[in-house]
Amino acid sequence: GENRKIRWGMTIEFNAIESAAERIKGLVHRTPVMTSVQIDELTGAELYFKCENLQKVGAFKARGAVNAVFSLATLNQGVTTHSSGNHGAALAMAAKLKKTDAYIVMPNDAKQAKQDAIRGYGGEVIPCEPNLEAREAKLAEVLERTGATFIHPYNDPSIIAGQGTAVLELVDQVSNLELIVTPVGGGGLLAGGSIVAARHKIAIFGAEPEGAADAHRSIATGDLVTSHVPDTICDGLLTTLGRLNFDIIRDKISGILLVSDNQVIDAMALIWSRLKMVVEPSSAVTLAAVIRNPDLFAGQKVGLILTGGNVDLASLPF
Amino acid sequence: GENRKIRWGMTIEFNAIESAAERIKGLVHRTPVMTSVQIDELTGAELYFKCENLQKVGAFKARGAVNAVFSLATLNQGVTTHSSGNHGAALAMAAKLKKTDAYIVMPNDAKQAKQDAIRGYGGEVIPCEPNLEAREAKLAEVLERTGATFIHPYNDPSIIAGQGTAVLELVDQVSNLELIVTPVGGGGLLAGGSIVAARHKIAIFGAEPEGAADAHRSIATGDLVTSHVPDTICDGLLTTLGRLNFDIIRDKISGILLVSDNQVIDAMALIWSRLKMVVEPSSAVTLAAVIRNPDLFAGQKVGLILTGGNVDLASLPF
Repeated sequence: GENRKIRWGMTIEFNAIESAAERIKGLVHRTPVMTSVQIDELTGAELYFKCENLQKVGAFKARGAVNAVFSLATLNQGVTTHSSGNHGAALAMAAKLKKTDAYIVMPNDAKQAKQDAIRGYGGEVIPCEPNLEAREAKLAEVLERTGATFIHPYNDPSIIAGQGTAVLELVDQVSNLELIVTPVGGGGLLAGGSIVAARHKIAIFGAEPEGAADAHRSIATGDLVTSHVPDTICDGLLTTLGRLNFDIIRDKISGILLVSDNQVIDAMALIWSRLKMVVEPSSAVTLAAVIRNPDLFAGQKVGLILTGGNVDLASLPF
Repeated sequence: GENRKIRWGMTIEFNAIESAAERIKGLVHRTPVMTSVQIDELTGAELYFKCENLQKVGAFKARGAVNAVFSLATLNQGVTTHSSGNHGAALAMAAKLKKTDAYIVMPNDAKQAKQDAIRGYGGEVIPCEPNLEAREAKLAEVLERTGATFIHPYNDPSIIAGQGTAVLELVDQVSNLELIVTPVGGGGLLAGGSIVAARHKIAIFGAEPEGAADAHRSIATGDLVTSHVPDTICDGLLTTLGRLNFDIIRDKISGILLVSDNQVIDAMALIWSRLKMVVEPSSAVTLAAVIRNPDLFAGQKVGLILTGGNVDLASLPF
């Protein structure tokens, strides 16, 4: 299976995230933090939006991918992954920076823009049928043919450490945060972020669409949900929580907050119209969670990660 | 008529713009400048986007309105204007900062969001029928009733000086610009910007939709076009060039570049998808002009003003 390289139960220390920050410095952007008086008035909270939509490849995934590629001791035959989203473009970009090859296995119904982004960084797009078995088979084929190193999108210590740098930067940019909220899909960002939050004694929540509530269920029951059939407009949050990510977050987060797709659309419209930031639906789950839970957030100083800005302008949900 | 307070032929000196910058400092945002490797590759130019969509009230109009209101020696009975767009909200915001009243005459078919923005700043929205005569009559009525000071949206020296601070900041933020492009509607920004550009010996162009090409015609013929029937999606550029603005720009600009609405939509999509910035169509005329005129811009270091980000998400042109 995909997780063959993971030693279960391994821990990631805070200094792995500090090392990642050092490693990726100058290779990815230090993104700005934005605020909105109007959104603060609406929510009663003091909100700080970390703009990873302005990150390279338009998403925080650049952090993990660059950290993973630049962490590898040897890298003779390139890197490979499966991704229908931002991790593929991020890995292709990281490989280009490292002057090595990238092979990205993508479902053949993936958006043209996503494929173009990967090719734009010199990556090879390897189409497969849009199902788990076909993807696994195609990835095995690529590994066999190329000898490339597999970089999992989230269930990987170097990816987790890299994504965590977004939260590390945020706490450096905004002092005395009381709460942090990140989206949770596979859990790379939330796992890395929860390590930073624990170190800084800041409470951290994941925010998840009701239509992809596996992380919520995993945390609630204590048993990792390993498959589900998601139904949400948050196309960056369709994957199930990874094992390594689950093991990290379970005793560090304050909870997983659920939001409906309609709440996501309303929050996304607020971010677009007030912050003037183009963000993808997955990025808006955090603000949606703040609006849905005034008891938790009103009066608090809260950091939110705007995870990405790669949207299909031809099919906006407004 | 509206221009009763203008002394024709008066000049505005560069130091009026420096004074305006001093006056509005801390009351409006110093907006960031953004770049995009991909848009540079596409255009062959080196482009610097001044993000006035992130300005207060979501548009550069905040600069002129604050400068105008804070320039007034006496201000007992508030300020008034007519506006269906960003100047109305900007004047209401400026009046609130100055703790005085604002009366904004608006066509009764103006978007609810625009009216809400004005009321949000404590301004009074005064509806009129959507035609020139009704507007003039209603404005006269307001002046008579309130004794407020009329602040014209663009044909006014303090407005021009205020808008010019956007270009003043840009040349401070980016050294050695070779060309600057701003949208042109009434001409406040282009007039103020052309004074700054002349001082810094930088060529400056206006960019205008083909469906509202009065400034282009005025410059081409040397005779100010005083009325036209515009037809463009650039709802911030419907007005005709002002007399004062015309007198300032005619010997300072390198030309007015025309763009089609389709070119505007394509440029707007690029700004949204690459810069992740929500901008209104009027803001995209400058990039559209760069793309249409590679002979002028390729190989050059170019500053563009992204003038505003107030869009109706329910009716996007993509």
